[in-house]
Amino acid sequence: MDGQLEENERLDDLLAEGLKIIQSPEVFSFSLDAVLLAKFAYVPIRKGSVVDLCAGNGAIPLFLSARTKADITAVELQPRLASMAERSVRLNGLDGRIRIIQDDVKGIADRLGHEKHDTVTCNPPYFPAHELSDRNMLEEVAIARHELTLTLDEAVANASSLLKQGGKAAFVHRPGRLLDIVTAMRNNRLEPKRIRFVYPKAGREANTLLIEGTKDGKPDLKILPPLYVYGENGEYTAEVKEMLYGPDV
Amino acid sequence: MDGQLEENERLDDLLAEGLKIIQSPEVFSFSLDAVLLAKFAYVPIRKGSVVDLCAGNGAIPLFLSARTKADITAVELQPRLASMAERSVRLNGLDGRIRIIQDDVKGIADRLGHEKHDTVTCNPPYFPAHELSDRNMLEEVAIARHELTLTLDEAVANASSLLKQGGKAAFVHRPGRLLDIVTAMRNNRLEPKRIRFVYPKAGREANTLLIEGTKDGKPDLKILPPLYVYGENGEYTAEVKEMLYGPDV
Repeated sequence: MDGQLEENERLDDLLAEGLKIIQSPEVFSFSLDAVLLAKFAYVPIRKGSVVDLCAGNGAIPLFLSARTKADITAVELQPRLASMAERSVRLNGLDGRIRIIQDDVKGIADRLGHEKHDTVTCNPPYFPAHELSDRNMLEEVAIARHELTLTLDEAVANASSLLKQGGKAAFVHRPGRLLDIVTAMRNNRLEPKRIRFVYPKAGREANTLLIEGTKDGKPDLKILPPLYVYGENGEYTAEVKEMLYGPDV
Repeated sequence: MDGQLEENERLDDLLAEGLKIIQSPEVFSFSLDAVLLAKFAYVPIRKGSVVDLCAGNGAIPLFLSARTKADITAVELQPRLASMAERSVRLNGLDGRIRIIQDDVKGIADRLGHEKHDTVTCNPPYFPAHELSDRNMLEEVAIARHELTLTLDEAVANASSLLKQGGKAAFVHRPGRLLDIVTAMRNNRLEPKRIRFVYPKAGREANTLLIEGTKDGKPDLKILPPLYVYGENGEYTAEVKEMLYGPDV
């Protein structure tokens, strides 16, 4: 297995799924937000087509593979990250179910098909380009975190273009961008249906937003129960523990 | 005191404020949502001008009078409800601080002044007119609950027209209307700044939305900690108890 690791990479466990993932702390490691999105998104169980945009090192497609038998396609612009994702997929013997595409999200439906897929997930760059203050930030990190190569509007528009009518797009973002994301969704035929706010702990403001919309859906928005990451004792809550470690811990 | 009560009316206590309010279970009684909005809204403490739109029987202005020394003006279209509010204000000796105006919210800034007030609160009718299925519903109740004489867009537009730059408008509504209300707010120069979702109890979807915006404010939305109404024991949570009964219960 070590032969599949490149410089500054390591192999981590996805405990709840019994899978392995190649990470690189300097270049890219998946965040809790990827876990939350992968658990939040609706996916068809037995068949269909799921696309993950801005896939990074492939955490979300790996997580999703434990929830669905559908074909999963993951799109990542950055060659270094796409390579990590590709090698993780092979390492887990999931080559037949997860396809990693190194390509730009912009215009991706021309390659993967317009109005064809059932679910799109996307954990896009969170921060506006103008907020990139650290010019020494590694390019891979800067592109993953900041809207340098893909704006929120573009992420939403391209997600929608992939989806068939009634298909679902799920995003994770910062709560401060709630208005931008719902506006972008409605502008792109994605009707917001479910929102879940994630709070670091009780008594704090939300720091993460999970949102799902249905293509050409009717307005009927539900605000789901809040999700708390840490309990009063400073440990993960039972719900987050189960997401990370599985139901038997 | 009984001489101030009309048919089918009764006198209830606002325990946390030490005030009385005239209610009529058949015609109009204030709801928990009015309590929540009155506690949620920013108000200037010592001076200034606060306007409550869709005031019903005057619960919100009465609640607010315990939080601010500002002038409070309450606008209610329906004569029967405005009369209840007016008599409650006198009953509490608050004539000098709360003014009840029986008038249409539409165009109210022509009467109360454009771009002049510090805070506007509004607990508008929640339900679209077309959802009014019970044609036997008492007219007062139908008008208070359904968008028959005032749409959400109109409520938001008129709230904004009253506010000076930097003034704040706070609304309570159903979470299903979140997208409509934020759209209406942004279309009327009210930038949403604080949202709090109210959940009947843990594990349930939110059933109430509290939202505040600042006129001509910069985008910077916070999602506040969730508010739960009932605890696991089926009783009000400590936070709601304090709102209703005051801090010493």
